[in-house]
Amino acid sequence: MAKVEAPYFGARFSLYPMTDRYVPVILGAIDGLRDRGLEVQTDDVSTFLGGDRNVIWSELERVFAAAARTGEHVVMSVLVSHGCPGEEICEIDPLTGTAEAAVDHPGTGVRVSGQWSLYPLGDPGYMDSIYRAIDTTKSEDVFVAGRHFASHVAGDLGEVLQTLRRAFDAACGSTAHVAAHITLSANSPSTQSTNGRSS
Amino acid sequence: MAKVEAPYFGARFSLYPMTDRYVPVILGAIDGLRDRGLEVQTDDVSTFLGGDRNVIWSELERVFAAAARTGEHVVMSVLVSHGCPGEEICEIDPLTGTAEAAVDHPGTGVRVSGQWSLYPLGDPGYMDSIYRAIDTTKSEDVFVAGRHFASHVAGDLGEVLQTLRRAFDAACGSTAHVAAHITLSANSPSTQSTNGRSS
Repeated sequence: MAKVEAPYFGARFSLYPMTDRYVPVILGAIDGLRDRGLEVQTDDVSTFLGGDRNVIWSELERVFAAAARTGEHVVMSVLVSHGCPGEEICEIDPLTGTAEAAVDHPGTGVRVSGQWSLYPLGDPGYMDSIYRAIDTTKSEDVFVAGRHFASHVAGDLGEVLQTLRRAFDAACGSTAHVAAHITLSANSPSTQSTNGRSS
Repeated sequence: MAKVEAPYFGARFSLYPMTDRYVPVILGAIDGLRDRGLEVQTDDVSTFLGGDRNVIWSELERVFAAAARTGEHVVMSVLVSHGCPGEEICEIDPLTGTAEAAVDHPGTGVRVSGQWSLYPLGDPGYMDSIYRAIDTTKSEDVFVAGRHFASHVAGDLGEVLQTLRRAFDAACGSTAHVAAHITLSANSPSTQSTNGRSS
């Protein structure tokens, strides 16, 4: 949201392992992240990723899967953003467009519970985009329930992120500037009692 | 974002203590939360708070301060939301309006580093609201730096949250539906090297 030149697509993420070993869990999960051709900027609160849209989504999935496979209770918070805030003339670079590459899903087999909120900005018809996104998560069978200010999703990490990405990309097709916040949780001791699928 | 009847103001928050003792740290921090007259709904990903605006901000501050004072590295993620999504006729209840009560700040003395993003929704002039919010954080001396998609803030927990609340409330004065995501971090081992104030 600051007055800095922003890329057309990027993400900020933070990884929270609920263990005394949080430093090695984080370092193990992000190992290799700087070798994928992305712009990577780390500070004491989060890490920014800029570059190819497919690589960014794939790396987010790979990093969280690696952390979850330690067996520790881990949460990842992700902010994804697309578009040209404050620009009157906005030409999205085709290379950062929404075309989805056929990719492996490194998160397949990791069960997650999560919540996300979608923000199509500057668009008086934003609620229509949000309702379409909810319909997408329902049709892909990762929707659990509507919560105040967020939708609850659950399922296989690969399927959940692929679905959220498609819903996000669809919103980018109708609104020039779109942000979303995604929280993913794995290995939570409280998931068993509250994570029932609604469908 | 789901099709549920939403209150005019509320918050969702999650607390992430990076320690094997995360369960007692969380339970200790939220002790008493259900005695403040708020609506409280907990699931396996986050906790919803609905009710009086002043009480909600005060409780968010108290909960994070209690967690931080354990000395553990703790992070809190907060989503605050105001307004009437999708409503053509929107009358904000004065009791949930933005009038700020003179309150104690239970977070005074707790040093935090954080990032936040503000989303005025359905408003073509949303970037002006965002720039005004950045100016507010600068004038209150909690602004550290602009990041891609977020502003970095730091300082005393009481001052940081009071400033973010004022910036958020100001946006609610010009836009009917406003959301913001706030991440607060305390006792991070990496804060010393990257948390320099810019002013």
